[in-house]
Amino acid sequence: MRKDKLLMTPGPTMIPHKVRETMARQIIHHRTKEFERYFVKMNEGLKKVFQTQNPVLTLVSSGTGGMEAAVANAFSPGDKVLVVSTGVFGDRFVKITTRFGLDVKVINVPWGCGADPEEIKKFLDSPEGDGVKGVFVTHNETSTGVANDIKGIGEVLKGRDCLYIVDAISSLGGMEVKTDEWGIDMVIAGSQKALMLPPGLAFVSVSEKAWKAIEKSKLPKFYFDFLAYRKSLNDNTTPYTTAVSLVIAASEALDMILEEGLENIFARHRNLAEACRAAVKALGLELFADERYASDLITSIKAPEGIDIDQVRKIMNLQYDIMVTGGQQHLKGKIMRIGHMGYVDGFDLLKTITALELSLLKVGYKLELGTGVTAALKTLKM
Amino acid sequence: MRKDKLLMTPGPTMIPHKVRETMARQIIHHRTKEFERYFVKMNEGLKKVFQTQNPVLTLVSSGTGGMEAAVANAFSPGDKVLVVSTGVFGDRFVKITTRFGLDVKVINVPWGCGADPEEIKKFLDSPEGDGVKGVFVTHNETSTGVANDIKGIGEVLKGRDCLYIVDAISSLGGMEVKTDEWGIDMVIAGSQKALMLPPGLAFVSVSEKAWKAIEKSKLPKFYFDFLAYRKSLNDNTTPYTTAVSLVIAASEALDMILEEGLENIFARHRNLAEACRAAVKALGLELFADERYASDLITSIKAPEGIDIDQVRKIMNLQYDIMVTGGQQHLKGKIMRIGHMGYVDGFDLLKTITALELSLLKVGYKLELGTGVTAALKTLKM
Repeated sequence: MRKDKLLMTPGPTMIPHKVRETMARQIIHHRTKEFERYFVKMNEGLKKVFQTQNPVLTLVSSGTGGMEAAVANAFSPGDKVLVVSTGVFGDRFVKITTRFGLDVKVINVPWGCGADPEEIKKFLDSPEGDGVKGVFVTHNETSTGVANDIKGIGEVLKGRDCLYIVDAISSLGGMEVKTDEWGIDMVIAGSQKALMLPPGLAFVSVSEKAWKAIEKSKLPKFYFDFLAYRKSLNDNTTPYTTAVSLVIAASEALDMILEEGLENIFARHRNLAEACRAAVKALGLELFADERYASDLITSIKAPEGIDIDQVRKIMNLQYDIMVTGGQQHLKGKIMRIGHMGYVDGFDLLKTITALELSLLKVGYKLELGTGVTAALKTLKM
Repeated sequence: MRKDKLLMTPGPTMIPHKVRETMARQIIHHRTKEFERYFVKMNEGLKKVFQTQNPVLTLVSSGTGGMEAAVANAFSPGDKVLVVSTGVFGDRFVKITTRFGLDVKVINVPWGCGADPEEIKKFLDSPEGDGVKGVFVTHNETSTGVANDIKGIGEVLKGRDCLYIVDAISSLGGMEVKTDEWGIDMVIAGSQKALMLPPGLAFVSVSEKAWKAIEKSKLPKFYFDFLAYRKSLNDNTTPYTTAVSLVIAASEALDMILEEGLENIFARHRNLAEACRAAVKALGLELFADERYASDLITSIKAPEGIDIDQVRKIMNLQYDIMVTGGQQHLKGKIMRIGHMGYVDGFDLLKTITALELSLLKVGYKLELGTGVTAALKTLKM
């Protein structure tokens, strides 16, 4: 017998049945009171999860579309910006800002480490940092398993004449993001990560300060033009046909999130991460990410000497129907990444660790069966 | 008792149960062989419906995103283009091309009429038409109920050094579009119209000639960059996380389309349109669109003297649970539009005409009950 595949990946992530069943309903028209009720409920829920008083815009796109939209809306050709890159998704901001003709400065943090707010401060205070109009940071860098100190970076940016733009695509709804309190001007989130939805929607919060920049932006855009979205949002609608099924699903998923409570959700994710790391270490494996910056949503594990980590993943996937992911770019074959975000509980993690133990044994790694599971179980608050 | 709302609108349109049930399945990861099978099946189906040998790209966006993508990929600032506008969606091409800094010439066709290929030829042969690098045409102009002669326009464009770009967002899968044979360089389609899917995906076919232009384009884009989509398509994947649920649904809907057969589908739509027009005329109502250009997918009806057409729509919607749409912009309150595209059969149309008769009576319009239904029934091939 085969169970449904358990996705322990950095997205797409598992979707609760309550959310999925909304997707099978007959479609409704998006210019109706009935749809408006879902849209308003989603928008109210989003504001709570983003912890903002400002509007949160909903785009039909992947998270990358949300990243591009932030760039295209808030800047003009030649604007100097700083990208703090800690991995693949930080680098994506470098690519997008470069493509759009901005003057791009980059702080490259070694992969596996998190950004140091002091280093950012130093850069901005230096002649090279003079006139920076935007600072881009990835919250949860899924390629390495690192979470950046978004609050701390916000502190060094406070009072500066630049926009603070955070890619929280995978973290929003799983780790704390205090958008307003931390002074973030744009937070970008994706549907298919901690928010327990299928892929297809990107959400972007926009501060008053960002709106001022948007009104002056000279980069061409039409589909992603935030001014059109703001105008429509005031009428509780979207400028173009939105993904009706996904919006209805989102209103349901946000209900579940707010029912569990943000604090409880953050605690659950933190505990899952602690348990995962405890298991990894008990099995004699090495963590890839510096533990000071370890993400609550994804754990990266170094391939042990002489072990084909991709083979381990393959066995987990084909024999035990648990999908985890490998390394990207130069980390290919060198790490394994276990996602524990969204609709994931302690049993899911224990199942994953069990499969990891069994699969490691099959490729010749020495361990005493149950070591990882026991360590996880002792750490889990279940 | 209330039945589910019947959408007789220009989209979103009704979705078959077989398609909807795929949306409720647990999510699968997009970088897997299992997903690849759906993606490949969708792509093969799309090529058949587009009637092209060239790749069809899948974007997570509304149709408008597809329109912008066509503009941003194939042109550079200052390029001269011609937009043939027959309504709201033609005007949207004017807005997008203008926003992206192109040198935009416009042929404005009176609303309710279709474009005359000879007029386009004359323009292109005139000094003003010299050096036009792209011609944009809407196939099915849902705002007026007009279908443009895409084949005929293709003939006057043949041999010219300009790209032929067709918005077939609402028509593809409902009316014939012979992409390759008619020499169309880019055809843009949307998921939520004749293709019987929820909104959220745009599809764009790209000819060899268009690829050459794309390689030279200097407009900034990242999320919609077709070169990235082409590269990924060669590996049977997408550059960014695609809308997994919608792709799976699309592979199912395309199966249904190909099973019914394109010729049968086109004949069904044409017959529905003929029956709808027969009913409208039998009821003494006036068609808005010039019958020479009447769309097979949507019928626009003029408000009779002294009749509040929006009130008629309201009764159809609230009392009979059938949704049709009103006029846009200067046609607000002046016309009603009945969509008959996608998952619509003769019974759906008869139901709509019945509700139209009953609602017209309620607002004081004189008619003999059954006149429209009988005319439709006599025309329908059921």
